This record gives sequence, structure tokens and C-alpha cells, in this order.
Amino acid sequence: MKIAVVAPARSISVEGAARVAAFTALYYPEVELVIDPQVYMEAGHFAGPDAIRAETFLRYANDPSVDAIWFGRGGYGSNRILAEVMPKLGPAARTKSYMGFSDMGFLLGALYARRIGHPVHGPMASNVSESSKGVGVGRALGWLVNKDRNALEPTLNGRPAAAFNLVILCALIGTPWMPDLTDHVLYIEEVGEAYYRIDRLLFQMANATQLKGIAGVRLGAVTDVPDGDNEKEFGESLETMMTRWCGDMGVPYLGRARIGHDTDNLVVPFGLV
Amino acid sequence: MKIAVVAPARSISVEGAARVAAFTALYYPEVELVIDPQVYMEAGHFAGPDAIRAETFLRYANDPSVDAIWFGRGGYGSNRILAEVMPKLGPAARTKSYMGFSDMGFLLGALYARRIGHPVHGPMASNVSESSKGVGVGRALGWLVNKDRNALEPTLNGRPAAAFNLVILCALIGTPWMPDLTDHVLYIEEVGEAYYRIDRLLFQMANATQLKGIAGVRLGAVTDVPDGDNEKEFGESLETMMTRWCGDMGVPYLGRARIGHDTDNLVVPFGLV
Repeated sequence: MKIAVVAPARSISVEGAARVAAFTALYYPEVELVIDPQVYMEAGHFAGPDAIRAETFLRYANDPSVDAIWFGRGGYGSNRILAEVMPKLGPAARTKSYMGFSDMGFLLGALYARRIGHPVHGPMASNVSESSKGVGVGRALGWLVNKDRNALEPTLNGRPAAAFNLVILCALIGTPWMPDLTDHVLYIEEVGEAYYRIDRLLFQMANATQLKGIAGVRLGAVTDVPDGDNEKEFGESLETMMTRWCGDMGVPYLGRARIGHDTDNLVVPFGLV
Repeated sequence: MKIAVVAPARSISVEGAARVAAFTALYYPEVELVIDPQVYMEAGHFAGPDAIRAETFLRYANDPSVDAIWFGRGGYGSNRILAEVMPKLGPAARTKSYMGFSDMGFLLGALYARRIGHPVHGPMASNVSESSKGVGVGRALGWLVNKDRNALEPTLNGRPAAAFNLVILCALIGTPWMPDLTDHVLYIEEVGEAYYRIDRLLFQMANATQLKGIAGVRLGAVTDVPDGDNEKEFGESLETMMTRWCGDMGVPYLGRARIGHDTDNLVVPFGLV
């Protein structure tokens, strides 16, 4: 099985790449992990210029010998290659899996909107820090290689699902890149946002015409909230906010979920599993 | 002429209210400035609970003796009263002006979407700090009271226009609160956002189905960009970003404009002036 690592947003370090390569060689020796050197490039905020990030993604997506694309890292930038890459995805792109989260939600969403391949919300190749002891990448590879259902977010229950970072979901709203999520359970998570910003994002989610018809919403981890902009200062809890906005949306708030920017980021394949 | 000050988002200080009242009494003695005590309320992040902010806005909007509503302050929160107030605006609401900016863009946009009254992007009643010497509120009152064209943003040229904080514009995208801006020149400004976030917002603006057909975009002030997330680290200038995304959008980037979170925040009435 061949898995390619590319970085459509920010770069990953040589050390991080070596670590995930070693982990994969140790636990999944049957996997040929191809880490394209593009992932080390630096151009301002990004892992290389837009054109190179787009070309690299397309090269692997359209390669029939590659079974899965495993995104290296988020940050910001995968939206900048959508207009270039989406029309150029060929037949080989339609059969493979694409795994990542956070900023990669732009690509996962756009792929799912066109029902190209199997977008999967899950850990990225750079999520192999010393502190996590490989738990995240272990789950990611467990799903990509063996379809190990222990890697799956435990509330997945036979309904179609989709998962997004809330900022990325909201940046897709009102654009042609947003997938039709009718009857889907929508999983959201957030990192590094003040409570008033989270509330504003939930307003947009709740009012989005494109999201009418979803089956319900689950909230993953909300991490790294800035000091001075948390529950105490805002005056409402996440549960209050979720209940309010899901109520406005007319869909059930289904409770918490184990996805997010922490070690407990379980796998949510888009659609049915 | 009667002007009512209300605060649909955050509160204003007693000192700030006294200052704008004194300024108005001094320079516009013909104006009866009514500052509702709601503006001093505090409930978590907000100037009172949603229900009270909504009731206060409605009371003045539906009062035929009030000629204009002058918003006290932005922050966050006017979106939370839209669903309550918009269906309850009566005939008296249709003839008055509504002036503010920043978070008030939610209300200005929703009013303009329904062609209710005269939404105006301009300084707020609390923009009367010692450093500004009353320049902003002077322009605001100059427009509200005398339709003084010296208060107008100088690039307004007989085409319909609309102005928004970019975050607020993007939070309206994909929702029924977004006005139809076909053939309008769109003025945007931003405060306190990292360059990568500004780029992400411009992506959404450029890809928004609802904004197809606008006449062009002008960029106002971009202020208080956080350290470490500015042009140098991002690798692109605002001009590059504007040119790129307006190009993707298929509309001209028309250059800079004198609106924003600084003293040079000139008046942009929605529609034609």
C-alpha cells in the first residue's frame, strides 16, 4: 500500500517527517510512505508557492499507484489551490482516501462536494509529537491501512457524517466548495478562538442556507482559547451556545465528540462508514 | 431632530456617553440626543441580555418621532438580535437612518437586505475619544443632521455602495441576512486580524455566490494587525491579496478607501447618495 504525504498549507519539519516515517516503518512495514520534498518548502506562510503546492497534490492524487493522500499539516493555505486542482482531478483521484483536518477541511469539503474519493477527517502526518506517543498517527494509519474501526469516532452510528474545524466550515459557507450535507451529522471542533468568535461562527453555521437539512451537530474539542476571551468573560458556556444555535437552526445538538486539535482526535470518514 | 443611541452589541461608558452628549449639545443644539440607559448595561460580553438589546432597538426603530438610530458601539453581538427584531420592524422603521460600523454591519446588512430605512456605515456615538477631537462623531452628525457631503467617503461616485468590516461581511455570507449587492461598489475594512486570516476572509468574499455581480471592491484601513502575523511573515502585501482575490472574483480592485477602525472613517451610505 502506497501513501503519499503532501502539504497544501504549511510546511512540516524534517524531524517531524523522519518521526512519522520511522513510526510507519515500525508498525506498518507493508506501507510505502512517500513524503514529497514539497512538504519542507517555505514561501512566506506556506509550504512553497501556490503553484507548487497545487502541482504536488495533483501529481499524487492522479497517480493510480497511490492509495491514499495523507496531509502533512494544516495552518492556512489549502483553499488557495482549490480553483487550480479541483478541475484537474482525474479517474485515479476518485478511488483514493484523503486524510487530514483543520485547514485541510477546504480540500476535504471540496472533494466531498464533488464526491471525489474518500475524504477522511483525522490526524495528519505531522501529528506525531513526542507527547502524543504516536496515538494519533497510529489511528490514522489504522484506518487508512486496515480500516480499523477502533480508530473511528465512537458516536458514528450508521448515519452519514462530516467533520470540520468550525472556522473552515464557515469559510466554505456560501461558496461552491461547500458540500451538500443533507441528513449528515455535522462534527465541528475549534482551536485558538475566543468565545465571542466561536459564537459568531455558530451564528453563521446556524443561519447558513446550505446547511438546512443536516441531521444534527456534535461538538469536538475546543482548545487553546485565548486568555481573557473564554467562558467567564463571555458569559455563556459552550453547551449554552450549542443549544441556542442548534435550536435556531432547528436541528438537535447531539453532544460532544472526540475530534479536535488534541491527541484525542478520532477518525471521521465523510459519508457513511 | 431626534437621534437615539442604542447598543446592540457591547456597552458604552457613562463618560463616553457624556462626551458625545456634550459634543452634540455644543455643535448640534437642534438635535435631541436620546441615550437609552440600555447602553450602560453589562451581561457577560454584551450590553445587556439579547432580549433587552432587541427590545431597546425595536422601541426606537418603531418610534415615528425618532429620525435616526445612531449605534453606540460595536464589539460583538448585534447578530444575536436579528431573528427577533427584523420581523418586528414597522412603518416608522422604514424612514429613518441607522448609522454604525464594525459589528453593526450585521444590522446594517440585514436592514439593507430588506430595504428598510437608510443604513449608513460611519462612526458610532462612542467614537468620540479625546485623541480624535470629535472628528468622527462630527462627520457622523454632519451626515445624519445636514446630509453634509463633506462627511462622505471621497471615492463615492454615483454608483451604489455598501461598506462592511470584512469579518462581518463574511459572517453574513451564505445566510438570508446578506443583502443583494449587485452593481454595488463594496467597501471593506479590517481590524485586529492576522494577514493569513484576512487572506482567508478574502477567499470567502471572492468565492461567495451571493456576491457575484458586484461592481468592484475598495479596501479601507487595516489596523491593529497582531505582531508576528503581518505582511512580513505572511509574505504578501494587502495590495497583492486584493488583486489576487478580486481577480478570482472577476471584479476590479478599485484601490484604497477612507473607512475603518481609525479616525479617518468617512461615511458610506448604503445604496446611492
